[in-house]
Amino acid sequence: MSAYCLATYRSFDEKADFHKKATSIAVGLTVGSWTELPEAQKAQMEKHLGKVISIEVHEPGAGESVSDRYADITIAYPDVNFSRDIPALLVTVFGKLSMDGKIKLIDLNFSSDFMAGFSGPKFGMQGVRDLLGVQDRPLLMSIFKSVVGYELPALREQFYLQAAGGVDLIKDDEILFENPLTPLEKRIEVCLEAAEQATKLTGQKLLYAVNLTGSTSKLAAAAKKAIAAGANALLFNVLAYGFDVLHELSSDPEITIPIMAHPAMAGATYPSPHYGISPSVLLGKLMRLAGADLVLFPSPYGSVVMPREENLAIKHVLLTNDLRKDYAYNAPSDAQLKLAASFPVPSAGIHPGLVPLILRDFGTDVIVNAGGGIHGHPLGTIAGGQAFRQAIDATVQGISLRDYAQTHPELQSAIDTWGIRE
Amino acid sequence: MSAYCLATYRSFDEKADFHKKATSIAVGLTVGSWTELPEAQKAQMEKHLGKVISIEVHEPGAGESVSDRYADITIAYPDVNFSRDIPALLVTVFGKLSMDGKIKLIDLNFSSDFMAGFSGPKFGMQGVRDLLGVQDRPLLMSIFKSVVGYELPALREQFYLQAAGGVDLIKDDEILFENPLTPLEKRIEVCLEAAEQATKLTGQKLLYAVNLTGSTSKLAAAAKKAIAAGANALLFNVLAYGFDVLHELSSDPEITIPIMAHPAMAGATYPSPHYGISPSVLLGKLMRLAGADLVLFPSPYGSVVMPREENLAIKHVLLTNDLRKDYAYNAPSDAQLKLAASFPVPSAGIHPGLVPLILRDFGTDVIVNAGGGIHGHPLGTIAGGQAFRQAIDATVQGISLRDYAQTHPELQSAIDTWGIRE
Repeated sequence: MSAYCLATYRSFDEKADFHKKATSIAVGLTVGSWTELPEAQKAQMEKHLGKVISIEVHEPGAGESVSDRYADITIAYPDVNFSRDIPALLVTVFGKLSMDGKIKLIDLNFSSDFMAGFSGPKFGMQGVRDLLGVQDRPLLMSIFKSVVGYELPALREQFYLQAAGGVDLIKDDEILFENPLTPLEKRIEVCLEAAEQATKLTGQKLLYAVNLTGSTSKLAAAAKKAIAAGANALLFNVLAYGFDVLHELSSDPEITIPIMAHPAMAGATYPSPHYGISPSVLLGKLMRLAGADLVLFPSPYGSVVMPREENLAIKHVLLTNDLRKDYAYNAPSDAQLKLAASFPVPSAGIHPGLVPLILRDFGTDVIVNAGGGIHGHPLGTIAGGQAFRQAIDATVQGISLRDYAQTHPELQSAIDTWGIRE
Repeated sequence: MSAYCLATYRSFDEKADFHKKATSIAVGLTVGSWTELPEAQKAQMEKHLGKVISIEVHEPGAGESVSDRYADITIAYPDVNFSRDIPALLVTVFGKLSMDGKIKLIDLNFSSDFMAGFSGPKFGMQGVRDLLGVQDRPLLMSIFKSVVGYELPALREQFYLQAAGGVDLIKDDEILFENPLTPLEKRIEVCLEAAEQATKLTGQKLLYAVNLTGSTSKLAAAAKKAIAAGANALLFNVLAYGFDVLHELSSDPEITIPIMAHPAMAGATYPSPHYGISPSVLLGKLMRLAGADLVLFPSPYGSVVMPREENLAIKHVLLTNDLRKDYAYNAPSDAQLKLAASFPVPSAGIHPGLVPLILRDFGTDVIVNAGGGIHGHPLGTIAGGQAFRQAIDATVQGISLRDYAQTHPELQSAIDTWGIRE
């Protein structure tokens, strides 16, 4: 009995016979041909043959055009056909098929056997909370305002102001690469110095995610250099390097700090209804499988927008055990196989007045991530961080922002500037 | 004076002020903020600031809707802002921006300075011709029919039949990963044995591109193992691993055989008019820059279709020196910097009756690549290869396929089966 990974596609076609199409995918992307095989050979090839699991046809209704006709097709691919790595799985299920008309990969479910090749996030959500010593509230993260072209003292100052406002995590800008003005080790040195200074004020810990960049084969060494210099988290542009690179980094026993996955380039793949890969697969399941401890993705709240239901789908797969589906043929003994959860970080366009909305959508297992909403605070960056922490404290305690703001001028000022969205 | 890489975007927006948008990209993706900087700081930051090069607004005309309003915006990004690697460039020009509404990266031009970090294809088109000893005609490549689940003798037989028909190159199926039935070294052994046997018949050389798969950090070692086993070409699923991985493989002095780039997964990125990256960048400029000696892409002739003009755009950038553009600020002394050409391989849906069309579009600098058009020949696989070689010979000599077929029964049979498209 084989194990199978399941891929679900949304295939648009004005008149296709979707049953025929599904069969042609299941056969074409596995054994190549089937009906013309001799019976004896069929018996031998059966375990390599893809299976059509389901076909749900959506016929255009009132107000829709024929071009809105699609089917959601789920195919089971035998694990025996591919090696236990993400490139092999993706090339199998969506290599050639991605180029075959209007078709989008909308879901992917891994067999227990396939997942056994992945250890998932090394820290995960709980590990990140433990490092920070914060268990009971959403975390707050901030992003540098401007970094390219700036020197160490300017970076240090920006860092200090963010840290002093009470943020839990600070991340490098994803476009800050190795450069002579603020080289990795120096950056870590001055920023952690600033963090320590801030800690004296705030009494809280802080993680600084430094951007891991450069040639692929040198990333692991760069990460270890960063760790030796004191780094306590890494930022990584996963999609510019490939999921397998993240998987190898997260599996490296010498990389002993959390990895934060940045979604840079993701918009080249997820937004079209007709092509690409859905956000819950691209920024959800694959990121977690590859071992991201924290995953950034565009929030539904700001200017860089992803629909709310897609955000919630990402959240769901980062936090629950719904990556695994064991299709009929084998029910493995290690059915409890679980990966640590990845911390969801909806990003972009966040201001304190959105905190109640974010917490309603995500609960407390979320990182509130802000850039302009901290640096653009009328009373300055420190007040910007404080206003967010106040908004979080209020919401967790079930107090309205308006009420809480009466005794918290930083929050009041933020509300005066950006309003409240409920 | 700085050097700049140029990115061109097609940005769709029903009512945006595209000049404002262009400025916000140029500033936002470089120095972060500009107008509010003190003059002294502006002088210092100037060399890091992105520049708006051009904006061409397309207002919807008759028969178009407001959603067809777009602008093509070209921004120059200072090289000083990013390291000389493809991930850094892509994250800079299209990392965050890819997620910012309907926007597609439609062109990318590298400065001479940036290109100096890349040696390009090690063999290139001419090197591949030299290896095969064929200078004056398009090459012919074929693809295995079925591979997954088959054992070595079946693979060997398929290989022999393709080789005996006179093809110049045979490639693994991209979904054939390391597996117990046909492991890499064994596959190379039996296929090259079959190649030798065929050479006795055909008198010609042959390249066999074996699929390079597995974990990213072990690819270079796997390639060297393949070379030690006698491999004379590699197939690589570039987009499943990232361009930088191809760049590192192609730059490795111990990888002494051509690398063929497969477009698997490309359809997740290029086909949408509103999102992603255009084919000429994704499968053209970036593949060549990263060092692909041969590049496969969907042909405009078959069922897996890419528009003809996009095919020609890929061809153009694979063959000419038009990847490089030196924007105003510096005209480098090494202006003659050139990369070897990558061999274009339009693929899918090819039968002998299409050869005149392919050669009209591509000239002789093309590899005619067929699967079903060879294996599905009524007289068998050998005749399938022969029919293609006859079609190529006829077309190069300026003889019509119909005339040539009168004395070439394999070609006649192919024409009877698939027709001629002119």
